[in-house]
Amino acid sequence: MRRIITISREFGSGGRELGKRLAERMGVAYYDNEIVTAIAQKSGLAQSYVQGVMENRIQSYPIHYGRTFSLYSLPNNENQIHIFAAQHEILQEMAQKDDCVIVGRCADIILKDYRPFNLFVYADMPSKMERCRQREPEGEHYSDKELEKKIRQVDSGRARYRRLFTSVKWGSREGYHLCVNTSGIPIKDLVEVVYDYSQVWFAHQTEGGNK
Amino acid sequence: MRRIITISREFGSGGRELGKRLAERMGVAYYDNEIVTAIAQKSGLAQSYVQGVMENRIQSYPIHYGRTFSLYSLPNNENQIHIFAAQHEILQEMAQKDDCVIVGRCADIILKDYRPFNLFVYADMPSKMERCRQREPEGEHYSDKELEKKIRQVDSGRARYRRLFTSVKWGSREGYHLCVNTSGIPIKDLVEVVYDYSQVWFAHQTEGGNK
Repeated sequence: MRRIITISREFGSGGRELGKRLAERMGVAYYDNEIVTAIAQKSGLAQSYVQGVMENRIQSYPIHYGRTFSLYSLPNNENQIHIFAAQHEILQEMAQKDDCVIVGRCADIILKDYRPFNLFVYADMPSKMERCRQREPEGEHYSDKELEKKIRQVDSGRARYRRLFTSVKWGSREGYHLCVNTSGIPIKDLVEVVYDYSQVWFAHQTEGGNK
Repeated sequence: MRRIITISREFGSGGRELGKRLAERMGVAYYDNEIVTAIAQKSGLAQSYVQGVMENRIQSYPIHYGRTFSLYSLPNNENQIHIFAAQHEILQEMAQKDDCVIVGRCADIILKDYRPFNLFVYADMPSKMERCRQREPEGEHYSDKELEKKIRQVDSGRARYRRLFTSVKWGSREGYHLCVNTSGIPIKDLVEVVYDYSQVWFAHQTEGGNK
């Protein structure tokens, strides 16, 4: 049985760091921005355009997987069809290859036949702002108000992009197996307990539902 | 520093069992229905009436704690004032006495100055129905439709009662430190990992914010 962890996360919650560290702990591949690069290569589109669509800064219509596949399933232009198709193919290839940790890109929905362990990582606004400040590149400085606005905007884009794939709301508990609030806790201290939790979860998945 | 775990839970998710087992694991008191009994005793009201108000089968108006204390803060009759006051006092007494695990009764809101570890326990509908069936008393039998309706009704009541104390929605991730989906996992197998998680969380709470 394949052991795949998908991570959905609020911007600034430390979800990416948790993903990287979990992948290290499991000794498996970690996929994040690589996915955008691979989609750009496969579709022949510019990486910035692909990124724009995936952050939902470019308008598109819902596409649904599984039971809810519906009349609304056509993206609104050819480029977006290419992006959706490439995203699907690339995530499938990654999942087929080996166990892995995948951050974002609706991997929890697209790979649901693999029964991944779906984690949602979040935090309160002060913690997210503090984490963002710590990784602020030199020369870049947002005011508190701007930073908060940016955090909310990124998350809104993620929520909108997710709506193209599923009717289950981004960040709503029913879409995930575990939701972790990282406020005030260094990510490195969460790795072992989240890893242990995932192992209990994997141990209870039957072979039947898995590829 | 006091170590209090509060558990909010969907009906049938196994939250109560998890609470009991966590209390055993920690070697601390476990409070659940005892709270209703104690409120009835303190307020001089019938236990069934107290239960009715706390399950929000009896109409009342919002009361808010902390910053959101507002003009709407008066319950709509004297009995309800007694219940709210008694609930507040009893939970405070429990928290002052020693570390403990408290299931339901908005303990996460009422005891927030103690910085409890707030857990939300949930599951998908089939798992909740299966758990309910397992504990169905002999002679009682709900059809699947009736059982699902009952589960939704109990949870709606909990959500409404919670709205009397806080603007943060029942079951919405931001109100909790960890949200655990118990679908398909025996509760006994979750105890150790949730306990370990809580210990990491407690280790990062500073003395400053605690009683």
